[in-house]
Amino acid sequence: MSLAPVLARIDADLDNAIERLCNFLRIPSISTDPIFAEDCQKAADWLVADLTTLGAEASKRQTPGHPMVVGHITPLYSDQKPHLLFYGHYDVQPVDPLDLWNRDPFDPAVEETDNGKVIRARGACDDKGQLMTFIEACRSWIAEHGELPCKITFFFEGEEESGSPSLIPFMKENKDEITADIALICDTGLFDSRVPAITTMLRGLLGDEITITGPNKDLHSGLYGGVSMNPIRVLSRILASLHDENGRVTIPSFYDGVPELSDTLKEQWAALEFDHDAFLGGVGLSALAGERGYSALEMLWSQPTCEINGIKGGYAGDGFKTVLPSQASAKISFRLVGHQDPEAIRKNLRRMIEGMLPVDCSVSYNAHGSSGGIVMSTEAPAFEAARIALSDEWPDEAAFIGSGGSIPIAGFFQEITGVDPILIGFGKDDDQLHSPNEKYDLESFHKGTRSWARVLDALSRLEV
Amino acid sequence: MSLAPVLARIDADLDNAIERLCNFLRIPSISTDPIFAEDCQKAADWLVADLTTLGAEASKRQTPGHPMVVGHITPLYSDQKPHLLFYGHYDVQPVDPLDLWNRDPFDPAVEETDNGKVIRARGACDDKGQLMTFIEACRSWIAEHGELPCKITFFFEGEEESGSPSLIPFMKENKDEITADIALICDTGLFDSRVPAITTMLRGLLGDEITITGPNKDLHSGLYGGVSMNPIRVLSRILASLHDENGRVTIPSFYDGVPELSDTLKEQWAALEFDHDAFLGGVGLSALAGERGYSALEMLWSQPTCEINGIKGGYAGDGFKTVLPSQASAKISFRLVGHQDPEAIRKNLRRMIEGMLPVDCSVSYNAHGSSGGIVMSTEAPAFEAARIALSDEWPDEAAFIGSGGSIPIAGFFQEITGVDPILIGFGKDDDQLHSPNEKYDLESFHKGTRSWARVLDALSRLEV
Repeated sequence: MSLAPVLARIDADLDNAIERLCNFLRIPSISTDPIFAEDCQKAADWLVADLTTLGAEASKRQTPGHPMVVGHITPLYSDQKPHLLFYGHYDVQPVDPLDLWNRDPFDPAVEETDNGKVIRARGACDDKGQLMTFIEACRSWIAEHGELPCKITFFFEGEEESGSPSLIPFMKENKDEITADIALICDTGLFDSRVPAITTMLRGLLGDEITITGPNKDLHSGLYGGVSMNPIRVLSRILASLHDENGRVTIPSFYDGVPELSDTLKEQWAALEFDHDAFLGGVGLSALAGERGYSALEMLWSQPTCEINGIKGGYAGDGFKTVLPSQASAKISFRLVGHQDPEAIRKNLRRMIEGMLPVDCSVSYNAHGSSGGIVMSTEAPAFEAARIALSDEWPDEAAFIGSGGSIPIAGFFQEITGVDPILIGFGKDDDQLHSPNEKYDLESFHKGTRSWARVLDALSRLEV
Repeated sequence: MSLAPVLARIDADLDNAIERLCNFLRIPSISTDPIFAEDCQKAADWLVADLTTLGAEASKRQTPGHPMVVGHITPLYSDQKPHLLFYGHYDVQPVDPLDLWNRDPFDPAVEETDNGKVIRARGACDDKGQLMTFIEACRSWIAEHGELPCKITFFFEGEEESGSPSLIPFMKENKDEITADIALICDTGLFDSRVPAITTMLRGLLGDEITITGPNKDLHSGLYGGVSMNPIRVLSRILASLHDENGRVTIPSFYDGVPELSDTLKEQWAALEFDHDAFLGGVGLSALAGERGYSALEMLWSQPTCEINGIKGGYAGDGFKTVLPSQASAKISFRLVGHQDPEAIRKNLRRMIEGMLPVDCSVSYNAHGSSGGIVMSTEAPAFEAARIALSDEWPDEAAFIGSGGSIPIAGFFQEITGVDPILIGFGKDDDQLHSPNEKYDLESFHKGTRSWARVLDALSRLEV
């Protein structure tokens, strides 16, 4: 089965593909808001129906939350070919604040912009548009050759934007069905508009909320100021001690399990010539704030962080109130890499805090998410095959890159199915994910679809 | 004119005095809420009418805010006697949260409690009850002797609980009318139920709100975490640096103008045997948090403070948001003593902050109140005369004490009329000022009235 006519068909069918995507985008499948529960069901039904038109054996699978969609297409004579699994999510983020949108977020349209055509709607990129690049590649392949080049399982969830509560139980219960030779995920971005990317390193995430309590009620600073311990002062001292002067995190054993970056990867990343001046300049900054001695990409992709995401205490409204608060609290999160142990870090953080508490202050905690960093074994031939296939579609060669963020599903595939997933996506930095005016470049959608056709071709030729 | 029959008349007239106070307390003269503006007028009218029954030449004086009340009573043959001025305020604090009151805050009543009878209502102590102790003393004096022992000017304001915006302009415009030989203020408390007090040292107050700005918008910690400066981290470092390990404030020149406490005063305060264990224990604390080397009363009355009254930044609601905020801010206030210069301290604080700012962070300020500490010259004979008169009424000898809080009117008298006011009051620590269930002990009201009769007698015998 040759690739060229599949690519030609994708080009010819682009307008229809856009129309299908727009139909999908019209369903307001916001997973976090119960008001839209029925719409999540509709989005799942839409996917089942679309997969069925491809000849898939597809079904909606109910969960305690929003349903999963699973579909299988098994071509004749596929025994010696690798079995691929593709993951995406059909749910989207809320749309507030609505007045910042230039159009109804669930009335998609192709808009002309200074940077070319874009598809504008909530979910245009994250993840409906990305998900459809894969389905459209399959559609053209089937239309051209009558069947896919290998067996494919489609696996879609509807709770990615609300913490995926049903995902692990479902994957464990249906482990055999969702285990394949190669797993593909389309929920990431290009390195830039010329350089496609496979994300092979992801940072994990650990969150902890700490509350310092001093006096048993709010006090008046005229009556108690000078004799009573102020928990904001204590909290400030704790937070100020989390980094040393070089930006290095001071929690004991924090860097245990942080891998040394190989010279090869360092060189590859340096070759990307990342413009950190432009990156920081876009948000009004000029200097790298991470640990000295690392490049921007190394800080973002291979180094752990400790950030204070929120703080509150006392009276912070308009005007002034001379209160000595009873409590002050902060939300702290860590991006973790390599083999850092989230729970060990939580324990060491808490021990460090308790060592800094003055008499008369106590601390309580509210534990939040805990997931370790993820590193794919790129030695598996599928990674290099996919990288070459991507390079054929885009102006510059594809790169193995890291991601500063966390994509928990990648780790779940590793843990539950033993497969290192290949993360390929076509989003751009300005796609406004989770924000008003989300968009997906038409180029991302079109070349993304062509990219998947190339990747399917390349992976189907691998021996398993 | 002898004192004894005046005291006897006060005792005999107590029930009527309570009824008059209750009539006054029924007027909801909340100055901060415009809804009660008409009630503030009514309270002023009530005072004018009451002073008129004493034979005073009294009038309501309109201001841009709530009115002042000024009244004069000039006895015959008063030429050689000191002219006294008495200040109080007729406005009260709001009553929220109403559901925590055990009765309608504007339906006063005498209640029996474990600690004796109390008058329960908003303003029962602060300041209607206290103000009426002075008027009732005058009333009994006039009833008994036909006239007062010296010339008295009454000066009442209705904006004390809302920042006294009209006070300074009014005092300046009417300087001659409100200047007297001796000024008396009744808005403070007893040292304890046995020891009456004249407050001769008051702390000033300086407030500044600082906002640190890093990136020009909120960022996602997955995308920017590790390379971008986090303003909460910067703010924490600044706040943590404001005190050294001994609790001493580190702002340069901060202690300039802090007076050395005289050995006499130290001994007097030590003799009060202040129970700081009980004081701190009542709010769940056990250790003095101020600068080492000072007693609790020294910390509260003679030492300056630096307190963080509020802090905010990033996401502090339920759950977690991995945001790197653009801004973080804190409200900082200082209680000042002696001759510390508020504006010099503000300047030095800001210079210190600016010296700690990393590249990429800026700071903005919102200046709040600025008033210096106040120290009365207790060498003036009126102070000692009043102290002896108070000692005659209460079980233990009266003390010259300090106050951790600020009473701006005291400084205004010093500045505008050149007179150091004598601050005498009968409030107790558990009077619930500004809180639900405010009360004034019947003992405070009764012995307070008797105290003023004694003080009037003593002061009227001074030569001027």
